Amino acid sequence: MAARLSAALTDAQRVAWLRLIRTDNVGPATFRQLLNRFGTAEAALDALPGLLQRTGKPARIASQAAAEDEIACLMRFGARLVASGEADYPELLGYIPASPPLVTMAGGVNLDWQRTVGIVGARNASSAGIKMTRMLATDLGERGYTVVSGLARGIDTAAHQATLITGTIAVLAGGFDKIYPDENIPLAHDILDNGGALLTEMPLGWEPRARDFPRRNRLVSGLSLGIVVVEAAKRSGSLITARLALEQNRDVFAVPGSPLDPRAEGGNALIQQGARLITCAEDIIETLGSADPASGALFDRDWEPDLTPDTPPPTEDDKSRLLSALTATPIEVDELVRQSGLTVSAMQMLLLELDLAGQIEWSSGQLVALRYS
Amino acid sequence: MAARLSAALTDAQRVAWLRLIRTDNVGPATFRQLLNRFGTAEAALDALPGLLQRTGKPARIASQAAAEDEIACLMRFGARLVASGEADYPELLGYIPASPPLVTMAGGVNLDWQRTVGIVGARNASSAGIKMTRMLATDLGERGYTVVSGLARGIDTAAHQATLITGTIAVLAGGFDKIYPDENIPLAHDILDNGGALLTEMPLGWEPRARDFPRRNRLVSGLSLGIVVVEAAKRSGSLITARLALEQNRDVFAVPGSPLDPRAEGGNALIQQGARLITCAEDIIETLGSADPASGALFDRDWEPDLTPDTPPPTEDDKSRLLSALTATPIEVDELVRQSGLTVSAMQMLLLELDLAGQIEWSSGQLVALRYS
Repeated sequence: MAARLSAALTDAQRVAWLRLIRTDNVGPATFRQLLNRFGTAEAALDALPGLLQRTGKPARIASQAAAEDEIACLMRFGARLVASGEADYPELLGYIPASPPLVTMAGGVNLDWQRTVGIVGARNASSAGIKMTRMLATDLGERGYTVVSGLARGIDTAAHQATLITGTIAVLAGGFDKIYPDENIPLAHDILDNGGALLTEMPLGWEPRARDFPRRNRLVSGLSLGIVVVEAAKRSGSLITARLALEQNRDVFAVPGSPLDPRAEGGNALIQQGARLITCAEDIIETLGSADPASGALFDRDWEPDLTPDTPPPTEDDKSRLLSALTATPIEVDELVRQSGLTVSAMQMLLLELDLAGQIEWSSGQLVALRYS
Repeated sequence: MAARLSAALTDAQRVAWLRLIRTDNVGPATFRQLLNRFGTAEAALDALPGLLQRTGKPARIASQAAAEDEIACLMRFGARLVASGEADYPELLGYIPASPPLVTMAGGVNLDWQRTVGIVGARNASSAGIKMTRMLATDLGERGYTVVSGLARGIDTAAHQATLITGTIAVLAGGFDKIYPDENIPLAHDILDNGGALLTEMPLGWEPRARDFPRRNRLVSGLSLGIVVVEAAKRSGSLITARLALEQNRDVFAVPGSPLDPRAEGGNALIQQGARLITCAEDIIETLGSADPASGALFDRDWEPDLTPDTPPPTEDDKSRLLSALTATPIEVDELVRQSGLTVSAMQMLLLELDLAGQIEWSSGQLVALRYS
């Protein structure tokens, strides 16, 4: 987790942060490494051309103009770009691995962002699932909880609708101007009109692709003390959210259902794996009393910067050694250091290069694997 | 648990055991105490008139003729009276607190009495509940498990029907000649015709009353490695069976259901309390692999006989002291000894008297309370 700033970013800093996070292959984890290594986003941007040259792959650095343009556009939409550590940045989100350095937010100024429950489930929900969602969401709202969901069809929609008045947060998988699905554009407006919030980490104009939904789901759970799975098939986005919530050390609740109903398979399986079976909002509230979302910070993989300017850059030979140690199976960095014989500082630099070249991917913010895509 | 006998009872011993257990206010626990204290059922029968006189309440000792008559009648029904410790006595049943000294059994000679699963649930089961029961019972049967249930309407009936061929045990709440409900008399015959078993601890001619069903339920779980609750309302006999199963250290499984369905309330609540959520027979079989029914013997409350013939009988004053220490709240005997200041032998003798006078009741075979009825 980045150090919590005492003050807001300056306009220039915000533009630099935005340029850096909008640069190819710079995700939240790489962003943090660059910031740790170079001190500021501006310094990282200055160093990027050199780093990218070493990767041997072309990569686009986001331009000053594009960043300024995005910020201006967002303002016209009534949205704001909030940086990790700023007063407006949702505190719970700051505790998750690879929390987004910047999020785009609209509305939600008076919401309680600390007492939050995520509700997720099937897009093709049954009428019983919809009814259950409404009951849970309404009761949670009346008990003072803000309900977080993903603005999808089915369960998500029911969760937002039931909490329009009490407070709801919709997390988008695409850009602010690319609400998905189209049929929920009116719901998004209703949410804002009622004081609820829309939030995304994706750039303006970004059309959500399949892979963006799991990424979005980590924010749904990241914004929540715990998440409730209402109806979920065996292999579904809701189960991904549940897994992410566990990685974030958040509570996972599931509504049970008849084993004869395929839409209950996911929830029942979660309960078998240790999720708490819930039948009403009270069951959730009881458990949340002892929730400790900050302990999710355990998973953070920030390293102290230990690479002085005098340290010689790693050699091509070092890079081959690292690449031959990596596979598609995620592995801990410490383990990689042991296996490859590289120094920690060389490892850090090489992983940064490979990150920027799009050759590796991180999971849970701490495990690294070769990317095949 | 009574010592396991190496051989069958003689005819005379069997008649004496039957007279003793058929005597007013002699339940399984009191039977064991009498046997422990007097060595044999014959000796206990000889001592009973004196003991009963001390209780100040009239109580009927079962006659030799009545016992012989019951045995002869049972033989005509094709049933047999099996004593705890005999080869035919179901071993699993021997491990439970207050296991019946004698059970009446018919059929089931070739059943596997060790690999057993109890299935219980609502009499007014839903069609989904019936279907689920059939699936579970059929699969358990095909995997070599004998299915135990209570011959009631609904879930019980479906469980027996699905396992007529593979093997099923029906435990009755009344006498052998008092099958309940009437509509399941043909099913009872089908069970016997297919090699299944009927079992009861109640006397021939006994019409089952409400209180006999929980008593029967303890045998359903006692005969089973684990029990499955398929559909159960919040306050139901199935939940009593689940509690008894836990006291017997047996596994408890529950089929989940939608919180909107009142018939799922009991099962969902059991899962919240720690029962294993199951969706298929495989889920049950996995867990039963490590079942240890013998550890249920922990709950047994047999005492070593420590009252020598020379010990003076407890006084009326001792009795009042014990009675004033007892309430409707079940309490451990050790605690009673501490509180009342009575010796263990005086306590043992007094509890036996109060048992015979019907003034106390035992729960879990180890806690004692005043009886209000």
